[in-house]
Amino acid sequence: MTISNIPSSVKTPFDPITAEEITVASSFLKKKLSPLVVQFRVIDVDEPRKAQVIEYLEKKKLNKDAPLPTRYVKLIYVKSDSPHLQKSIYNVDTGSIESTVEFPLGVKSSVDLDAMPVLEELCLTHPKTLEEIKLLQIPDGYTVVTDPWIYGTDDSTETRSLIQFYMYIRKGEHPEANHYSIPLKFSPVFDSDSLEFVRMDYLPSGIDSSTDKARLPWTVVEPIEYSHDLHKDGVRDGLKPLVVSQPEGASFEVNGTEITWQGWSLNVGFTVREGPVLYNLSFKGRSIMYRLSFSELTVPYGDPRAPYHRKQAFDLGDVGYGASANSLKLGCDCLGHIKYLSSYRSSNKGEPILLDSVVCIHEQDSGLLFKHTNFRNGAATLSRRRQLVIQSIATLANYEYIIAFILNQAGEIEVEIRATGILSTMPIDYGSKVPWGTTLGPGLFAANHQHLFSFRIDPAVDGFNNTISYEETFPMKRDPVDNPFGVGFGAKRTIVQNSGHFELDPTKNRTFKISNESIKNKVTGNPVAYKLLAPSSQMMLMDDESFNVKRAVYAKHPIWVTKYKDGELYAAGEFTNQSQEETGLGKWTARDDSLDKNDPVLWYTFGLTHNPRPEDFPIMPVEGASFMLIPSGFFNKNPALDVPPSLQTLNKSTLADETACHMDKLSL
Amino acid sequence: MTISNIPSSVKTPFDPITAEEITVASSFLKKKLSPLVVQFRVIDVDEPRKAQVIEYLEKKKLNKDAPLPTRYVKLIYVKSDSPHLQKSIYNVDTGSIESTVEFPLGVKSSVDLDAMPVLEELCLTHPKTLEEIKLLQIPDGYTVVTDPWIYGTDDSTETRSLIQFYMYIRKGEHPEANHYSIPLKFSPVFDSDSLEFVRMDYLPSGIDSSTDKARLPWTVVEPIEYSHDLHKDGVRDGLKPLVVSQPEGASFEVNGTEITWQGWSLNVGFTVREGPVLYNLSFKGRSIMYRLSFSELTVPYGDPRAPYHRKQAFDLGDVGYGASANSLKLGCDCLGHIKYLSSYRSSNKGEPILLDSVVCIHEQDSGLLFKHTNFRNGAATLSRRRQLVIQSIATLANYEYIIAFILNQAGEIEVEIRATGILSTMPIDYGSKVPWGTTLGPGLFAANHQHLFSFRIDPAVDGFNNTISYEETFPMKRDPVDNPFGVGFGAKRTIVQNSGHFELDPTKNRTFKISNESIKNKVTGNPVAYKLLAPSSQMMLMDDESFNVKRAVYAKHPIWVTKYKDGELYAAGEFTNQSQEETGLGKWTARDDSLDKNDPVLWYTFGLTHNPRPEDFPIMPVEGASFMLIPSGFFNKNPALDVPPSLQTLNKSTLADETACHMDKLSL
Repeated sequence: MTISNIPSSVKTPFDPITAEEITVASSFLKKKLSPLVVQFRVIDVDEPRKAQVIEYLEKKKLNKDAPLPTRYVKLIYVKSDSPHLQKSIYNVDTGSIESTVEFPLGVKSSVDLDAMPVLEELCLTHPKTLEEIKLLQIPDGYTVVTDPWIYGTDDSTETRSLIQFYMYIRKGEHPEANHYSIPLKFSPVFDSDSLEFVRMDYLPSGIDSSTDKARLPWTVVEPIEYSHDLHKDGVRDGLKPLVVSQPEGASFEVNGTEITWQGWSLNVGFTVREGPVLYNLSFKGRSIMYRLSFSELTVPYGDPRAPYHRKQAFDLGDVGYGASANSLKLGCDCLGHIKYLSSYRSSNKGEPILLDSVVCIHEQDSGLLFKHTNFRNGAATLSRRRQLVIQSIATLANYEYIIAFILNQAGEIEVEIRATGILSTMPIDYGSKVPWGTTLGPGLFAANHQHLFSFRIDPAVDGFNNTISYEETFPMKRDPVDNPFGVGFGAKRTIVQNSGHFELDPTKNRTFKISNESIKNKVTGNPVAYKLLAPSSQMMLMDDESFNVKRAVYAKHPIWVTKYKDGELYAAGEFTNQSQEETGLGKWTARDDSLDKNDPVLWYTFGLTHNPRPEDFPIMPVEGASFMLIPSGFFNKNPALDVPPSLQTLNKSTLADETACHMDKLSL
Repeated sequence: MTISNIPSSVKTPFDPITAEEITVASSFLKKKLSPLVVQFRVIDVDEPRKAQVIEYLEKKKLNKDAPLPTRYVKLIYVKSDSPHLQKSIYNVDTGSIESTVEFPLGVKSSVDLDAMPVLEELCLTHPKTLEEIKLLQIPDGYTVVTDPWIYGTDDSTETRSLIQFYMYIRKGEHPEANHYSIPLKFSPVFDSDSLEFVRMDYLPSGIDSSTDKARLPWTVVEPIEYSHDLHKDGVRDGLKPLVVSQPEGASFEVNGTEITWQGWSLNVGFTVREGPVLYNLSFKGRSIMYRLSFSELTVPYGDPRAPYHRKQAFDLGDVGYGASANSLKLGCDCLGHIKYLSSYRSSNKGEPILLDSVVCIHEQDSGLLFKHTNFRNGAATLSRRRQLVIQSIATLANYEYIIAFILNQAGEIEVEIRATGILSTMPIDYGSKVPWGTTLGPGLFAANHQHLFSFRIDPAVDGFNNTISYEETFPMKRDPVDNPFGVGFGAKRTIVQNSGHFELDPTKNRTFKISNESIKNKVTGNPVAYKLLAPSSQMMLMDDESFNVKRAVYAKHPIWVTKYKDGELYAAGEFTNQSQEETGLGKWTARDDSLDKNDPVLWYTFGLTHNPRPEDFPIMPVEGASFMLIPSGFFNKNPALDVPPSLQTLNKSTLADETACHMDKLSL
């Protein structure tokens, strides 16, 4: 109860949950419900009410005494007398439960991570599974392994908590033996509440849905390994060490959850669902963002055959990006001068579990920030671009996702995702080919799929009187007076008046902006603004009648705008696991709220359509995407003019021609 | 004549021109044409004939004696008895001129860089200019400056070599005083051959073309300075040094123009027009690219008023990216362990001028290359991504462009451009606003414009039997048997049979591929291929009747495919300066060549539509774009599996919490 990584002297409304809060809240609820047994699914901070936070921030800005907003903890759980999911809101300040909601049957929380090993054991030792394994006639030295999978949805009457087990074989006992290389053709389904065996699914392995090859003996095959210990590719020569050091220390300061760096000030929160959350971002003393967060990620598969049509993970709603975050290691995940942040999740018994070093913060050099050479005399001005990177990596079964929030010295924010890890593989008949996937080896293929990310941008551009608009750059019509040569072009701005969804169009250079219409840029006379640089990508490919789309309407359009409302954080809604339909952006925008130039929220959906390459196996070289938020008439001139010039005396670069030298000889 | 940075022991067909070659070829021509006076515009390597190079490469691969292809030098010049531009091809091996072409009147070479200071002086001291300056009544401490500008085109009968001088005021004598901050309203036009004054253009400064305010006295205004010495923003605190070192040296080897690094082997050439050119790229012993180069960059302005309609620079064809390249400096332009390459250009007298350190080569860390954690036991495999960066920076009057070719360990190629420097500014009446540009200060605005880049991709995917195709990912139709749940999706491939142009479409995930149909991937059975990851951007906005489009047809479509032909290197044609129409991609594709699965060339046009922000002034934070070429079924599995794991023992990262330590204490 005493472990907490947030010193109480710098408590803010944005602090992640503490070990103590988990313990106190869960104990209170257990006591209150005693003798019923409570099984927790989520215990986390319940987002502080924005109106209270704004009051707090405004008082703080005026150096007034600013009491913290009410601190709430949400507890999502089931209790032993009911199959219904429950959610209670615990008021930390008063030590009491303020509200409890009981959800209808069929509403599922994210999966119970602590139950996973138990369920794997259940599946692997169940007679029905053993019967199938026996038919395979597996020789010594090979072991059957299972990956429990989110069940997805294909039946609107189903209310049980189902879990589908995909089965594999691993060779040997190495902890990283690649079972994904040898998928099997049977797949048990269990009820994860009652622990009852529900059904054996057999997997199709040819061009049609036929499963007639599912119960044949296994043909021994060599796995394609990814571990450096196991594969036969050896290790390539010649990669010399590259050391990033900051002999005078880092340029950022961390005080509790508050980070200051190069004109930036922000708070880094963390939730078990979203991972790192950036709050209260300001640059050079002016507010830019209230909250910037990863909102959802759905991964639907394009294999049309049952049961694969149900493969549609919601990695945030079904599992939790934060809860799945890796403990990061110096020199491996993070290079240079690193600050780690830790957080907590709750066990299903209500005990705090340390999520150790799940966020790393460091600086990196990113080439030139600006340069100009006067061609008359060769005189040059240049500064290098330094970035502050706030990064997490999460493992969601087979896949890894790296999320980095990257700030730079020019008031720009970049959000970068990288997908890596291992493809979710399926069995295929030897010599067969299917048009919706890629063969990776004998009996092995990976289906086409998509990764559809949603990020939530809750702006505060010079305050909350914010307006969303989009601008298109259009050619002027040829005209003998106004455009006699046919070369003129201008930009047309359209203000978004009501909540809704919007398309991108790179051919029109359509760009979304967040402006504060009440504050004009002194130089241009136009409202101060930030703009979203959002690449266009393919949206969800499933048809509108599919459960995939009904559950993830957010993934059908790249841009969404809503009117801010407490509790509306997750693009596909709060509960996605086995959901029949979304309760997120589609529903919220259907209110057609008037935005009234106040407190809009901008959401961006982008995707990777991933038709696997053989190069993506057995471990995938990162595939990335990113977007940016940059000032656009927010400042009167380049806000990075004051970045000092780059000097060799500090940077100590060396010529590659020089004899390799030791670090202690590098100083000038 | 003795300076040359290419040791003759490692001569290759890809070597840039040597000082000796410039001298020998120019002397030969001067002697031959004596007593005529020759004024050179370009002396550079004339691209070796591809058929000969292929023969050479194939012999070398078999370790056979491989004579170098014929070495040609091209000389572009005018001679004192003719106004016509001349081009001679000098055969270095035989020491003779093989051919000479005389171009029609009106065909202009790129500008004579050596003449620029002379022309500036001519303009600034001409009575017509002095008369205008006098009217301005400029107080002491201010000086009139001029930027000579490419004249552009608006008259199909014009054959003189015209040059337009845009006039500015700088304050004080600092070599970086920012004259772009104070544009003036008159603009003399001269004939750069005869040195005759042609015309005084007066600049419009309001919403229409009226120039009635052009001759009023100047209102003194403070310039907005960019130099660290001059602006009043000071230098921000707190940026601590970041040192990148490679204590055991760089991982790459350079031998003449040949670079080997992490499985890659390639040659780096350099031309005065294109800057760095990558040749003969192979990875893990298999050929991928024959030649990869920057082909053209046009920058048309969207201000409809005369004379701005003529502002359309072709930075490669009109000036030369290589000829304008900066001499790069350790710790400033380049960080870490750096290898520099130098090259030469010719003076207008035919003497070699050293282009010192115009290419830098270095490694950088780029985060994770791959990672997977086995969620059952926490065992993780990960490697970091190292990149090899081949970078140049060129100053084209006001703008700087940074081009980086970036290779990584997974056989991937990224090409990144960054635009920085200073906006091309124009005068505006105090208090006025125009819809085609952005006010940057009193009397100062910058017009909307575009930067339209073309890169030329001359592939050699496992040889030259290459085919270009594009793939679209499409949803399968719902069907009770084949797609009963409406979730299936596949990819449809269309082979490009004939030369032509093509659109991108991110909504269809349209992706262009270069394949070798005669070689099948052993795992998938499909032809081996590389794919182009090419973001979609806005094409040229001017109308099809404008000279801007006629001169740069390449800028109207993102993807072009041609059949390889010697000499077809530049997207808008060889001579762009004052061109009436292009002689490049538009003309070549009109041949409608059958591609015949052999030796196609792929061209990619992308753009930045730049509606200036006040934040882009007085010096612009880099704005970037990039594209990639990645293996797609070229390898049987991840070709980077053999990259060693990342180890803290080598990477020596530190905790930011630890007291700042000195570098010599960093070793473990």
